[in-house]
Amino acid sequence: MYRIITKVNSPEDLRELSYEDLRRLSKEIRNFLLESVSKTGGHLASNLGIVELTLALHRVFNSPNDKIIWDVGHQAYVHKIITGRKDKFHTLRQFKGLSGFPKCKESVHDCFETGHSSTSISAGLGMALARDLKGEKYSVLSIIGDGALTGGMAFEALNHAGHSETDFIVILNDNEMSISENVGGLSKYLNRLRTDPTYFKMKDDVEQILSKIPAIGKSVVKTAQKAKETIKYFFVPGVLFEELGFTYIGPVNGHDIKELTDVFKRAKKMKGPILIHTITKKGKGYRFAERYPDKFHGIGPFALETGKKIEKTEGQTYSNIFGDTLLELAEENSDIVAITAAMPSGTGLSKFAEKYPERFFDVGIAEQHGVTFAAGLASNGLRPVFAVYSTFLQRGYDQVLHDVCLQNLPVVLCIDRAGIVGHDGETHHGVFDLSFLSNIPNIKIAVPKDGKELRSMMKYAFSQKSPIAIRYPRGISKDLTTENNIDDIYDERAEVISIGKDACIIAVGKMVARAIEVSKLLKKDGIETTVINARFVKPLDKDTILSSIKDINNIFTMEDNVKIGGFGSQILNMLSSNEIGSKNVKVFAFPDKFIEHGETETLFKNYNLDTEGIYKQIISYLK
Amino acid sequence: MYRIITKVNSPEDLRELSYEDLRRLSKEIRNFLLESVSKTGGHLASNLGIVELTLALHRVFNSPNDKIIWDVGHQAYVHKIITGRKDKFHTLRQFKGLSGFPKCKESVHDCFETGHSSTSISAGLGMALARDLKGEKYSVLSIIGDGALTGGMAFEALNHAGHSETDFIVILNDNEMSISENVGGLSKYLNRLRTDPTYFKMKDDVEQILSKIPAIGKSVVKTAQKAKETIKYFFVPGVLFEELGFTYIGPVNGHDIKELTDVFKRAKKMKGPILIHTITKKGKGYRFAERYPDKFHGIGPFALETGKKIEKTEGQTYSNIFGDTLLELAEENSDIVAITAAMPSGTGLSKFAEKYPERFFDVGIAEQHGVTFAAGLASNGLRPVFAVYSTFLQRGYDQVLHDVCLQNLPVVLCIDRAGIVGHDGETHHGVFDLSFLSNIPNIKIAVPKDGKELRSMMKYAFSQKSPIAIRYPRGISKDLTTENNIDDIYDERAEVISIGKDACIIAVGKMVARAIEVSKLLKKDGIETTVINARFVKPLDKDTILSSIKDINNIFTMEDNVKIGGFGSQILNMLSSNEIGSKNVKVFAFPDKFIEHGETETLFKNYNLDTEGIYKQIISYLK
Repeated sequence: MYRIITKVNSPEDLRELSYEDLRRLSKEIRNFLLESVSKTGGHLASNLGIVELTLALHRVFNSPNDKIIWDVGHQAYVHKIITGRKDKFHTLRQFKGLSGFPKCKESVHDCFETGHSSTSISAGLGMALARDLKGEKYSVLSIIGDGALTGGMAFEALNHAGHSETDFIVILNDNEMSISENVGGLSKYLNRLRTDPTYFKMKDDVEQILSKIPAIGKSVVKTAQKAKETIKYFFVPGVLFEELGFTYIGPVNGHDIKELTDVFKRAKKMKGPILIHTITKKGKGYRFAERYPDKFHGIGPFALETGKKIEKTEGQTYSNIFGDTLLELAEENSDIVAITAAMPSGTGLSKFAEKYPERFFDVGIAEQHGVTFAAGLASNGLRPVFAVYSTFLQRGYDQVLHDVCLQNLPVVLCIDRAGIVGHDGETHHGVFDLSFLSNIPNIKIAVPKDGKELRSMMKYAFSQKSPIAIRYPRGISKDLTTENNIDDIYDERAEVISIGKDACIIAVGKMVARAIEVSKLLKKDGIETTVINARFVKPLDKDTILSSIKDINNIFTMEDNVKIGGFGSQILNMLSSNEIGSKNVKVFAFPDKFIEHGETETLFKNYNLDTEGIYKQIISYLK
Repeated sequence: MYRIITKVNSPEDLRELSYEDLRRLSKEIRNFLLESVSKTGGHLASNLGIVELTLALHRVFNSPNDKIIWDVGHQAYVHKIITGRKDKFHTLRQFKGLSGFPKCKESVHDCFETGHSSTSISAGLGMALARDLKGEKYSVLSIIGDGALTGGMAFEALNHAGHSETDFIVILNDNEMSISENVGGLSKYLNRLRTDPTYFKMKDDVEQILSKIPAIGKSVVKTAQKAKETIKYFFVPGVLFEELGFTYIGPVNGHDIKELTDVFKRAKKMKGPILIHTITKKGKGYRFAERYPDKFHGIGPFALETGKKIEKTEGQTYSNIFGDTLLELAEENSDIVAITAAMPSGTGLSKFAEKYPERFFDVGIAEQHGVTFAAGLASNGLRPVFAVYSTFLQRGYDQVLHDVCLQNLPVVLCIDRAGIVGHDGETHHGVFDLSFLSNIPNIKIAVPKDGKELRSMMKYAFSQKSPIAIRYPRGISKDLTTENNIDDIYDERAEVISIGKDACIIAVGKMVARAIEVSKLLKKDGIETTVINARFVKPLDKDTILSSIKDINNIFTMEDNVKIGGFGSQILNMLSSNEIGSKNVKVFAFPDKFIEHGETETLFKNYNLDTEGIYKQIISYLK
């Protein structure tokens, strides 16, 4: 079955192959991807869509001498397979295995690391201009999806690149999708390029006619001439990119290796910034993924025959609890509106979007705009909730601070995938949010210990008249049996779960369950602990915490955030501000480093933040 | 001299005036602005440029019912003057006086607060869609400069707005400038619209000709028809905005009140998102400002007759020291390149730009791209420095984390205007950088106590192979007489300035001078203090600090950052990690609120962070 793929160990091996062999190789790669990803889980649909494009790219360009930068990077599996990582591919996204994103330490063919969207044009332009200054010669290419192109920094980079006149190729991988269907004026524009035949097939006499029109003649004719000299694909509609200073080429069939190869060969010789518009199909070649590209964007292990997930989990995810609760609250309060940055499904907003289409806003991959747009809605009387992954809210730090909190606007941030996210790894863990949000005045930060508490906190959030963040982890919520007093939440009180004289553990979020487990282990050793669920990182419930620890000297804090600036830091600050300097406080949190990928519990264990690890450290500390 | 302006106390008063009176009013307002701002200092050139536009706007639209959002907001002086704040205008930017930016608490005519660039379209779109959902009827307008339009989030918002079909007006105030001359493909594009007469005056027969061209006929003809129905200003070149879903109107002479009024009246009746392209001249009506709009962008008090600053200060600014030092280092090391986000002059890069144009990159108002572009340059072997104001680096938080630090790339961030900036106030103080940078792995954060130390730290920075931030304040550096051992800086050591047994003050940056002063006052009371200049917030020099405080129980930290997550927090964390729980630590830092505008030293005093304030608190604490 794998006749050709076994012979491909580096991009050079592609150059020997005939187009027929390359087409066969495409099939083999798709099979290989399906077999492998159905076992490991991973990003499937985007990789199935980019097989031919990757092969043509590596056939024409000479990596690692030529630099290839993958925007987002979750579509780089094919690139990994043909750059010598095929045999390790079964370790994809596993602890100590291959990353699901480009990683420089994995291969010389990975020249820039990505994970978040819309960075590749900036990085590529930097590389191209560095090359020019050093007097070197090679191609630099950034491959970016039409979804990623809606991210503002991609536009900032296009604006700069178009002005720069450096030789630099941007390949637009247009599959009409972000993770879900793409939105916005740009998307409509690209759609016109794709679908309206009169829009991109210019007649022979067009140049002549154009020259008669003073209004647009000049630039278009120049474009036309430039394009004619080089390739057959050219036309006016690329004017949006042309006006920014790019030479536009396209649209090109992204599944035709011959066509792609021809275009790339010509582009390689062209001067200045070039944008090649390729059309691909997300999920190509696997019918379930073609039909449900959204579902097969990022997926866990699944059955190849049926396309169905191999689920072992029971219970509701935090995302679903968020979505269902929001639906209930929105029924009672017509001012509630919801925003997502291209993630209606992942954040749990699909049902809301279906039921209240006019109250639902998908702004594209545009977290900055998402936050300030929410501020605009709130300033005009609505109650917006921005549902966003923790790691992507990093993009909106300034907007949360400057546009929401400075005006003290009642925006609710529902922050999913907080803490460790597992297999996506370094670029995706949400372990910074408590730190970057805590330093912002006016914001409140609530961290539910379980799904029930998330529900209560959401109700509380919409009762407030100032900005609130609620952050919760990826995955299933296991409801704890401790109390869930909604009045206490409205009063922003911490919850005292148990009382013991020897030590106090103050935990937040999913670490509360762990704190209870640790306290049980300690009890077996005769150590009585007070366990507190802080509930709020900001404002801290000073009264409850200070009175609980009055006679306790050993304090332990637990969080799934980095240590610096996180929850433990707030506790230390509070003690210092209240002139309580005589306690021993130990902060359990992630260290000051980027946390790798792997199964979530494996990562906790690796950093001694699993139950056993924390228990042992406390024991040794108390001795 | 002020015949008409005295009669204008609200926008309604404008509606009675003839065009002649309005033109006279424009002159009076310019005189008023010049008289007032020459005394208080402030943003001059942008306000001189927007007089007619503001008058026409308030004549046609009905604020506060209609919503007017000023991007950046430093051009809202005219708006303030005619919305009842004329008599308070002499208090502009002074402590407890009028803000230099829109502030909702000042007037019902300020409906959304701004300060940072490129937010107005997001906010306006939010307001417009909230209006639609509530079934209300009024106009929403965002006024944005061509500079601000290069900020990515403006594009994100255009993309969303163009798709939305809501009635929403964006007024592009095109003066060909950011603070300095504008850059990028977009700027070139706007320039073509402005300057090429064949580009914006369409011939009568153009519609007919266009309809013959299948390639572009469809959308253009639609545009043409739409436009013809409404106003005379229209044409193809606006296609960039048209393709995103906007109806483009322009260019309009932004100094012709009659023309502006006509256009606004027509736009008011039109449907869907509209972009009105107005052409204005920055500094209009004051010859020095017309000639040097950059210098008169933001300026201190100056002499009206000569245009010269009334300077009382002696010595070099940190910005100049940075610029001069960089020039020296760049001479020795040809790999050094410099980046600014539209602030070559403010950051001190002008000389570098002049001497090394090919090694200097102005990326436009685009901090996100600026950071990741630097990462690209660094990953390809160069040594980029991004010179940026602290408050604007907030925009690049994710990029510093995800693109620079995750790959551990040797990018040098030179962060100017850190700490309190004074008159610009709430939106511009750089009091969050120590907090938002500290939580990022791999980055080092150096904070010079004076200009000499800045020089040494810059040398050190370029010797490193990982990301480094150097943050320093606005204004003049007064070199301290304490030692400045460069070897110690290379070794990342703190500096022990004095040794005393009763207390220890650990300070960073400009607070080191204050710590020395406080320690002198304490000495008069017989209290001997150890004073430490930490130099590095990250990594902390644990050895020096711990050994210095070994026998001291009362520790005080001093910083010009917010308390949460700042320098004091790092000290608390370090003590906790080293299991030193028995010290009393008091953190002197800005509280958890947004700090208002006013003279810098006034603000320190207001928060008890002046020498006297800190001294008194320490005395009371030690008792």
